[in-house]
Amino acid sequence: MSRPTRAIVTEVGPRDGFQMEAEFIPTETKIRLVNDLIHAGVPRIEFSSFVSPRAVPQLADVLDVLAGLDRSRGTVLTALVPNAKGAARAAEAGVDEITVFVSASESHNHKNVNRSVDDSLSGFEEVARIAADAGIPVHGAIATAFGCPFEGDVALEAVGRIVERYVALGFVGVSLGDTTGMATPRLVTTLCRYLQDRFSELPLGLHFHNTRGIGLCNVMAGLDESIDAYEGSFGGIGGCPFAPGATGNICTEDLVYLLHEMDIDTGIDLDALCAIAREVEQVVHRPLPGQVMKAGPRLKLHPLEGVETAVG
Amino acid sequence: MSRPTRAIVTEVGPRDGFQMEAEFIPTETKIRLVNDLIHAGVPRIEFSSFVSPRAVPQLADVLDVLAGLDRSRGTVLTALVPNAKGAARAAEAGVDEITVFVSASESHNHKNVNRSVDDSLSGFEEVARIAADAGIPVHGAIATAFGCPFEGDVALEAVGRIVERYVALGFVGVSLGDTTGMATPRLVTTLCRYLQDRFSELPLGLHFHNTRGIGLCNVMAGLDESIDAYEGSFGGIGGCPFAPGATGNICTEDLVYLLHEMDIDTGIDLDALCAIAREVEQVVHRPLPGQVMKAGPRLKLHPLEGVETAVG
Repeated sequence: MSRPTRAIVTEVGPRDGFQMEAEFIPTETKIRLVNDLIHAGVPRIEFSSFVSPRAVPQLADVLDVLAGLDRSRGTVLTALVPNAKGAARAAEAGVDEITVFVSASESHNHKNVNRSVDDSLSGFEEVARIAADAGIPVHGAIATAFGCPFEGDVALEAVGRIVERYVALGFVGVSLGDTTGMATPRLVTTLCRYLQDRFSELPLGLHFHNTRGIGLCNVMAGLDESIDAYEGSFGGIGGCPFAPGATGNICTEDLVYLLHEMDIDTGIDLDALCAIAREVEQVVHRPLPGQVMKAGPRLKLHPLEGVETAVG
Repeated sequence: MSRPTRAIVTEVGPRDGFQMEAEFIPTETKIRLVNDLIHAGVPRIEFSSFVSPRAVPQLADVLDVLAGLDRSRGTVLTALVPNAKGAARAAEAGVDEITVFVSASESHNHKNVNRSVDDSLSGFEEVARIAADAGIPVHGAIATAFGCPFEGDVALEAVGRIVERYVALGFVGVSLGDTTGMATPRLVTTLCRYLQDRFSELPLGLHFHNTRGIGLCNVMAGLDESIDAYEGSFGGIGGCPFAPGATGNICTEDLVYLLHEMDIDTGIDLDALCAIAREVEQVVHRPLPGQVMKAGPRLKLHPLEGVETAVG
């Protein structure tokens, strides 16, 4: 396998990051941030979710957000939907793509959506019909694909049978979610090869968390398997419900920085992305884990005067 | 090249991390932490420095710290020395190894130690004599090896000529320092190959900072070039003088976690290392960037009850 020369980066911060924010973020702020992402050249954005407004009040303004977005650039605006009802709303709203999700482990799926993996998959048949009728492609996400916080290791076969169903349902792509940061380079290599052997034509994406500090190392392992689609959140916003203080999603700017420095094109303006991440810090009133937005570009030169270097 | 199956991890937190702490850390605390590192199986520790106590008051207790350390395990206790005077003190104190340093870029070396690169290198001749007389090996560090915050990119030849001098002086190893987090996987590959082509027998180590979030990606690139020696700081303590809020050294626990998960043995007890990092957080009264110490081991299982998972 050889590394790709171009990668598709999906920004999931407006959904995966913001959904954990207790304080409501004004709709106009969300619109401005997502439009800024669009103008920075991000090709695909998970901009919100059609989950129950009662379950996630933060994303209850999904329709208003969508109405305010710049659709002129061809950016793929995808929304998470948990079930047929959400799919119907998403289709009516006219999203570019619907993303469904199921966990690879029974206990996590039960905890997350209160049903079995099979029940989730069966429900996606109606989602697929609704989407097909509306001419909207469906993307399938798989949570806990690299491990489950309740069950531990997840069998390759458990992921494989979900992918099989996704493919049968005509989904346009599949992303493997490392929901609680249990992926490692070795597991990435193993799972990617397992799936590529069986579904050679399927566009595969990777969604890593940096909960154990090695999220971008897992990207490196994915690149080595020719995977060219990665998801991140601006500033690295989002946490881990199992580890107070630990980070959640890998940071999009740091991801883009890594890709560019490896000669992998993303079409994204990194400086603009860093400016957006710094604005997200202002919006949530706290520092976020992203590093490049703090340190600046690699070749940002500093004046010789005025900085005390540390000896050694 | 193939990845190593065993790596030598050097803990530099007691020197590289602590030297930036404004509040004096009690000598007995330093002794306890370094002894805990020794007992956790860390094979090499940069435990302090023989710089001027006026320049770095935090490390003025280097002799008392050394006197309190457990020397029974064979852990290599190395100390940073800036010049012959420091080397004489280190030799008299009986350290296991002396580490000298010079920057690969003139302006950084001038800023750091107020002399030219050549003057630094000439000064190491006396250091080498003092060390040889005492039977103490010398290790050579090279700062700004992957880029300089004042000059930008650093030529391979600038690093190469320092390594050449280090080899001529009989140094036992060389570490390449990414002082302000400018290393990238591509630069790591290029510089390692350049040096390995010219100094095939020389033990080469890598000292990365995580200032732009890709410190452990650079470790991955180093592993691909068979490099088996890496330096980190506990909890990721240490910052960057050029980027307030950005991190400094890569975090030792996260590094060890990555290595273990890649089947690379370190001889280090990761749980013990995480406990030490959590204690360092207590000592400096603030959270540190390390992730594994917060999230726990990969297969730490959680009870199904009591945690709200995020939808999706």
